[in-house]
Amino acid sequence: MNLLLLRDEDFLPDGTVRLTGRRLAHARDVLRLAEGDGVRAGRLRGLMGEAVVQRLTGEELLLRVQLSEPPPPRPGVDLLLAMPRPKALRKVLPAVASLGVDRIVLCNAARVEKSYFSSKVLDEAFELFCEGLEQARDTTPPELHVRERFRPFVEDELDAMFPLGTRLLAHPSAESGMPRRDGRMVLAVGPEGGWVPFEVELLKGHGFTAVSLGPRPLRVEVAVAYALGALAR
Amino acid sequence: MNLLLLRDEDFLPDGTVRLTGRRLAHARDVLRLAEGDGVRAGRLRGLMGEAVVQRLTGEELLLRVQLSEPPPPRPGVDLLLAMPRPKALRKVLPAVASLGVDRIVLCNAARVEKSYFSSKVLDEAFELFCEGLEQARDTTPPELHVRERFRPFVEDELDAMFPLGTRLLAHPSAESGMPRRDGRMVLAVGPEGGWVPFEVELLKGHGFTAVSLGPRPLRVEVAVAYALGALAR
Repeated sequence: MNLLLLRDEDFLPDGTVRLTGRRLAHARDVLRLAEGDGVRAGRLRGLMGEAVVQRLTGEELLLRVQLSEPPPPRPGVDLLLAMPRPKALRKVLPAVASLGVDRIVLCNAARVEKSYFSSKVLDEAFELFCEGLEQARDTTPPELHVRERFRPFVEDELDAMFPLGTRLLAHPSAESGMPRRDGRMVLAVGPEGGWVPFEVELLKGHGFTAVSLGPRPLRVEVAVAYALGALAR
Repeated sequence: MNLLLLRDEDFLPDGTVRLTGRRLAHARDVLRLAEGDGVRAGRLRGLMGEAVVQRLTGEELLLRVQLSEPPPPRPGVDLLLAMPRPKALRKVLPAVASLGVDRIVLCNAARVEKSYFSSKVLDEAFELFCEGLEQARDTTPPELHVRERFRPFVEDELDAMFPLGTRLLAHPSAESGMPRRDGRMVLAVGPEGGWVPFEVELLKGHGFTAVSLGPRPLRVEVAVAYALGALAR
């Protein structure tokens, strides 16, 4: 954890921060904080800065915070992701939060199993985002949308949700590689086994250009980080 | 699994392949293969092609294989990685195999805990590489080296192990980003918490240029995929 992520409800009326539970245990047992120590902190969806330990007991951690720095710049990337299997979802959510993705739509696809949409990992999405933010020293989680019907989403919602930006579709047989970043980007990444032709055509019909991430089929969390790296240049 | 990875000991004298155990179970229960079905296959450290099911019983899977395609091109990247904690190591090993890294040295660093070197994940490294190869449709695992002493490795072994190529050191405070790929690359990625100044200076003294992967501290498996993506352009 590289940042202590503070939530609105952690702030007492006088501006002091009071932590209990997991973050108290982490501060005591892992960070081994003591009175007077400073630690990097940030307010969820807000500024970052330093927190100084005022009191640390078995019941609570009291911090005096001074938050004045903006969170790190964001790459300007949104993701349209075929719903991954739960095990992969658990890895990809912290990863996309750490990479500063702004918005992520988890959508259906022909090669997605219906049951993935009832995965309990979805209930933990916010906590998994926070894990990624604490890793990457950021305070702004991605916006998450789940869409169980692919075609209505693409036809009726996509333009309103992503009004701006280059639309890219990661597709193994595409001949061009990732372009240089030029303003906002929306990147669509298919399921294990890939998008079926109907899905590729539908996305192309809605302004997506197929790009290749290379000849190697990558796991979704690896593919997303790889693509963000390629776009970052 | 996108490739059935065959080992030398799977081949019978007549060239037929016989699988049992995990790969038999996978072929039957996940791939749901039946007699006459074809499946993509590759020989460890060798060629790839197609395997056709000759017989599938509860005890064995017999395959007739025709392997004539070379494995995918490799990015030409080697990694010098501060030994990650076991949980991260388990994620990064399949990832680097799937990305086609040629050689990976897991080395000590000031911020690495000694106990990481006795992790049982190291005993599973080869299987974890194979997982990555099966994912990425490759047949060539990375070469793995473990070095418990950082300075002797850098001073006495590094030049012989990496005689060619640009040497890069991922370092958050570096001013330049990842360069374009130009021949072979060796990328050094520090531990959680980063390299200490002594380590940075030692690596710089041995031809490493510090480059930044951006302002966000990333988990090692995300950082490596991100860096490979940036180098791929």
